[in-house]
Amino acid sequence: MKQEHIEQINKAVAAVAAKEKINHFYFVACGGSQAFMMPAQYMFDREIDIPADIYTSNEFVHRAPKALGPDSVVITCSHSGNTPETVEATRVSREKGATTIALSHLEDSPLWQAAEYPIHYDWGKEADASDLNKAVLYALIFRILNAVAPCEKYEKGIASVENINAVIERAKAQYADTVAAWGKKYKREQLIYTMGSGACYGEAYSFAICLLMEMQWIHSSCIHSGEYFHGPFEVTDYDVPFIIVKGLGATRPLDERAYNFCRKFCDTIMLIDCEDFDMTGIDEEVREYFAPLVAGAVLRSLADAFAYERGHDLGVRRYMWRMEY
Amino acid sequence: MKQEHIEQINKAVAAVAAKEKINHFYFVACGGSQAFMMPAQYMFDREIDIPADIYTSNEFVHRAPKALGPDSVVITCSHSGNTPETVEATRVSREKGATTIALSHLEDSPLWQAAEYPIHYDWGKEADASDLNKAVLYALIFRILNAVAPCEKYEKGIASVENINAVIERAKAQYADTVAAWGKKYKREQLIYTMGSGACYGEAYSFAICLLMEMQWIHSSCIHSGEYFHGPFEVTDYDVPFIIVKGLGATRPLDERAYNFCRKFCDTIMLIDCEDFDMTGIDEEVREYFAPLVAGAVLRSLADAFAYERGHDLGVRRYMWRMEY
Repeated sequence: MKQEHIEQINKAVAAVAAKEKINHFYFVACGGSQAFMMPAQYMFDREIDIPADIYTSNEFVHRAPKALGPDSVVITCSHSGNTPETVEATRVSREKGATTIALSHLEDSPLWQAAEYPIHYDWGKEADASDLNKAVLYALIFRILNAVAPCEKYEKGIASVENINAVIERAKAQYADTVAAWGKKYKREQLIYTMGSGACYGEAYSFAICLLMEMQWIHSSCIHSGEYFHGPFEVTDYDVPFIIVKGLGATRPLDERAYNFCRKFCDTIMLIDCEDFDMTGIDEEVREYFAPLVAGAVLRSLADAFAYERGHDLGVRRYMWRMEY
Repeated sequence: MKQEHIEQINKAVAAVAAKEKINHFYFVACGGSQAFMMPAQYMFDREIDIPADIYTSNEFVHRAPKALGPDSVVITCSHSGNTPETVEATRVSREKGATTIALSHLEDSPLWQAAEYPIHYDWGKEADASDLNKAVLYALIFRILNAVAPCEKYEKGIASVENINAVIERAKAQYADTVAAWGKKYKREQLIYTMGSGACYGEAYSFAICLLMEMQWIHSSCIHSGEYFHGPFEVTDYDVPFIIVKGLGATRPLDERAYNFCRKFCDTIMLIDCEDFDMTGIDEEVREYFAPLVAGAVLRSLADAFAYERGHDLGVRRYMWRMEY
């Protein structure tokens, strides 16, 4: 990871470490940026007893949680740094005395200026995966955990971030043929469900709302693997397509149960199984947390396959950025 | 409300009030029962600074939040009292020393026995709405708030619960013709989106996963009104049906913004506007919180209209309760 990123992260972590008391961590962002922080909220839930919550920015601003104040830490993200709801969430949080940390690709953007501790990440196909948004977030998260409750596991997490690029490249190569075949086979579908849980839920959510709905105009819904059996599974049928992510670690049994049921009645499942990945370089103790980064890269390849087969470029929009809303 | 219900509620509230310290409230249930507690989590967020979270039961059990312990209060719900994941969540929580409160229609069910403080609610068309699940939950929630941070507003909330039946009956009568017309007009749709935020998000979620997907086999997804603009709105088109709930209070601007955009490009919106309701009997200070109860009753009428028009009884299932899963 670039020294510039590490320095920005260290400044933010020092501010968190210097707090006398932390009453709440809030992760706040919109759409894909919210989804990308969901594993962080999951990690905090499992690792420490300080409460951590995640909100879509405008709900956070209007709901105005009573606990938000000087003892809080608010972590926001906007790729462009221009998402008005996220800028406002950061502004409001800082006004209430919270420590504000923001991740963005754009330096000096409104979000960058709104937060006390802005952190930059790289973007684009040339960038090393250990400098992209997810790796920078993980480098931050493991350092915060290590500041709050120092332990060797978090040191391993910090070290593992540096090796994520190779793991992702291997997974993409491994799934390349499968993903190309899925793109062709399912290109005429008008609705595709996604399913996941735990650390990987955010990737399933992101694929549904950003890649399928936003970038391909394919109807979708992300179903939580645990909720599937309490309503949604009644839509399962032989020709209703599901993309299922089987994660690693604590909630994997939920994904397995959902997959095992779904496959009995559905002939159109695209399964991404994180146990397939060669995670060499990522310490075993933290693989559960890194699985979504790898699954997300495979899902991104699948989006590329859909875009190619459907002649629908991922950059096409009919409303977003094209009008006032 | 029946004296029996109030006595069970009072026992639970006394146990909460007697705790030296509360580190966390957890609301835990599956599907419709989870959705029905979402407004409670919203109320806690807005009213008090003790953290409150909501989980689907199996995610809660496997995620095993580190903060769960003797200082926690866990509120679970299962209509039948037999939902295995929710029984397990209650058992695990009690084992860790948390105060466990469970709502159920079935006395002496496994859930009833798992929780330290079980609370019964009535069910069926003959029951008064102030003894149904939602009213009993609200009677509990306002009493807990009043125990934790006593104030007149919560007294008003407790009193308002007694008047909910008349408000709901008026709203159902008011929407009767509209709902019948929607049932006819949209009966051939294979996919219907729902949208909401804040206190009403749970009703939009519940309608999507339970009424549409589970009970009508209609594809659906609940879109948060704030998330709509960050991906999902790209599927908006003149013939894609949306059910939009405009709530009251803090997050209403999110619903209004989503509705105002959606209506520009979509000719198939079913709008349930909580400002239409005659809320006489519900104190103005707490109307925001009661809006989902009223919107939920109108939505239930809409489900009845779909069932009638489609000849698909709401009780029909192909998987649920019919096999092992």
